[in-house]
Amino acid sequence: MPMNVIVMPGDGIGPEVTREGVRVLTAAAEICGFDVALRHFDIGEAAFQESGDFISEEALRACDEGQAAGDTSILFGAVPSEPIGLLRERYDLYANLRPVRSYPGLSAVSPLKQEVIEGTDLLVVRELTSDVYYGRQRQGHGSGGEWASQEMYYDEHQARRIAAVAFEQARRRRKRLTFAHKTNAIGPVFSVWWKVLEPLREQYGDVEFDDFYVDNMAAQLCLRPADFDVILAPNLFGDILSDLAGGLVGSLGLLPSASLNDRGFGLYEPVSGTAPTIAGKNIANPVGSILSVAMMCEHAFGRVDARELIESAVLATIPGRATADISGPGPAVTTAELGKAVADRMREI
Amino acid sequence: MPMNVIVMPGDGIGPEVTREGVRVLTAAAEICGFDVALRHFDIGEAAFQESGDFISEEALRACDEGQAAGDTSILFGAVPSEPIGLLRERYDLYANLRPVRSYPGLSAVSPLKQEVIEGTDLLVVRELTSDVYYGRQRQGHGSGGEWASQEMYYDEHQARRIAAVAFEQARRRRKRLTFAHKTNAIGPVFSVWWKVLEPLREQYGDVEFDDFYVDNMAAQLCLRPADFDVILAPNLFGDILSDLAGGLVGSLGLLPSASLNDRGFGLYEPVSGTAPTIAGKNIANPVGSILSVAMMCEHAFGRVDARELIESAVLATIPGRATADISGPGPAVTTAELGKAVADRMREI
Ligand SMILES: CC(C)[C@H](C(=O)O)[C@@H](O)C(=O)O
Ligand SMILES: CC(C)[C@H](C(=O)O)[C@@H](O)C(=O)O
Repeated sequence: MPMNVIVMPGDGIGPEVTREGVRVLTAAAEICGFDVALRHFDIGEAAFQESGDFISEEALRACDEGQAAGDTSILFGAVPSEPIGLLRERYDLYANLRPVRSYPGLSAVSPLKQEVIEGTDLLVVRELTSDVYYGRQRQGHGSGGEWASQEMYYDEHQARRIAAVAFEQARRRRKRLTFAHKTNAIGPVFSVWWKVLEPLREQYGDVEFDDFYVDNMAAQLCLRPADFDVILAPNLFGDILSDLAGGLVGSLGLLPSASLNDRGFGLYEPVSGTAPTIAGKNIANPVGSILSVAMMCEHAFGRVDARELIESAVLATIPGRATADISGPGPAVTTAELGKAVADRMREI
Repeated sequence: MPMNVIVMPGDGIGPEVTREGVRVLTAAAEICGFDVALRHFDIGEAAFQESGDFISEEALRACDEGQAAGDTSILFGAVPSEPIGLLRERYDLYANLRPVRSYPGLSAVSPLKQEVIEGTDLLVVRELTSDVYYGRQRQGHGSGGEWASQEMYYDEHQARRIAAVAFEQARRRRKRLTFAHKTNAIGPVFSVWWKVLEPLREQYGDVEFDDFYVDNMAAQLCLRPADFDVILAPNLFGDILSDLAGGLVGSLGLLPSASLNDRGFGLYEPVSGTAPTIAGKNIANPVGSILSVAMMCEHAFGRVDARELIESAVLATIPGRATADISGPGPAVTTAELGKAVADRMREI
């Protein structure tokens, strides 16, 4: 039975990087011996022009059916914002995993000193379906002119399930969990979090737990990124902290992500976004998409071998063949050249 | 007529760093020839133990009178959270200026490569009296258990006045302004900001304006801090971005801040917070407090000479005599030793 992958390249650099993700996925399937069936859907601007919707009814139906069948994943490129929020909400993709690693041989592209970035291997576990993103909006007019507000919101269920994912990931990794919050300014919301964290800390007694105010967390990440293992954060803080960590390793283009629900359905996407200024030039870094495919192999297909193969190939390839964002003073390869080089390397390993 | 300074050392490292701020203030007054009258008030834990309030009525009265007289400033140390929010709100201290510079001779303590951090000289202009900090709170119980929410709120007046401060600061500096926002997730709130920004951009045609989503802003700050001049941010994002910038220069202990209202009243405080783990040990970095005094000299007393004197003395002192947070592998001096060294240096310049 094939693994079904719904491919949604989207806008900006989405199509060009996703093409390389697909190339690597196809290579992995071939080498590791599993079947993948791909279906492509235009989403974002193109879909909007055609149908007035950022995602067509047909694409959503394919996702609905794929989720129900339990054999389908989404490989996502990039969109400005609307459609991704819609997918996260519709499929309750609350668990956003964003691993950030410093790559040996790539420390030249990190803005950090080699001795600071070296050994960095962290995972941001970001809540993805609540917080101010989905909060109630109000608007009005008063003595200060127009005003608008949007609510940061969490309930116990939302906080508990993502915290449990974070503890579980920490247990499988280096057993350290750091919670980023702002209890000193947003007290009631974070007391909901603390309430669910207490019993989990007991239950995961083998996981060392600490916490930082998000502002201090941002500073500590710059000062000693290698000290962190799993970082648990609500949606907005997780958004900021994971991009920050991407800056620290030298390029957002390197970062993959997985957004999962409790039904085994997931969306895999690079963190880099549409990057409109470099779109269409065949210079964007496809590694974020390629490593998202690696996460898909593990989480959706249960193929740790394929994940490891892809990761090893990336590690072996990028020091020598790098796109402009990570090539430093050396020569740069194109998006497609890097994707091909990774796929070729996979065949040699 | 003396300049009146209300000294509120507060908790944690507040008292020890503020002592050095006062030492330097006294030296500056003596050398530059102006009079300073100091009044001390216990705030924070000590005040709470005594009176049940984090700030006594008497201290607030002194501030009220000082604001009315127009000749008074607050030199603030640190507190866990409540009293500082109260002062910001009561005196409408909406304009929070947080300069961040890389110090020549201190690039060893920055986690960033020297060529990345070198030349960094930016100013975070953070709105300080609105946003989620002061937003409406709601709580309840539903199918997801307990829930709580707090509103991120802005009106035109609040956004306009801080944006105007940022444009004005940019005009006096390198004429570049970058706005950090999250329009793609918190649309209505940021359309209030965009509405007031448009006319200001016209009015300040000499200031180059650009903007980033806050997540990308965090990454860009890591990748190329020296490219930024003034960064305008709402309260919560400004909190995170300024600490992040502090991490990039190597220590939060180096950063000063000024919180100003439209009546010429201001509160000056280091960014570092209470830092409970190192409190009482005479090892905290007093530079944040000392440079806050420098900001006070300029903004409150109009004494640019005193500001420059203090800054030069700090610059000349810290490469050789540094507290543990910035001494790197070299020997460290105590909080008091560093304060004294700066004051001594001021007398030699
Ligand atoms: C496009 C935007 C709404 C989105 C987010 O903030 O979640 C993006 O930054 C991300 O991290 O996936
Ligand atoms: C103590 C805390 C509420 C405060 C804030 O977030 O404003 C602090 O971090 C600061 O930056 O002054």
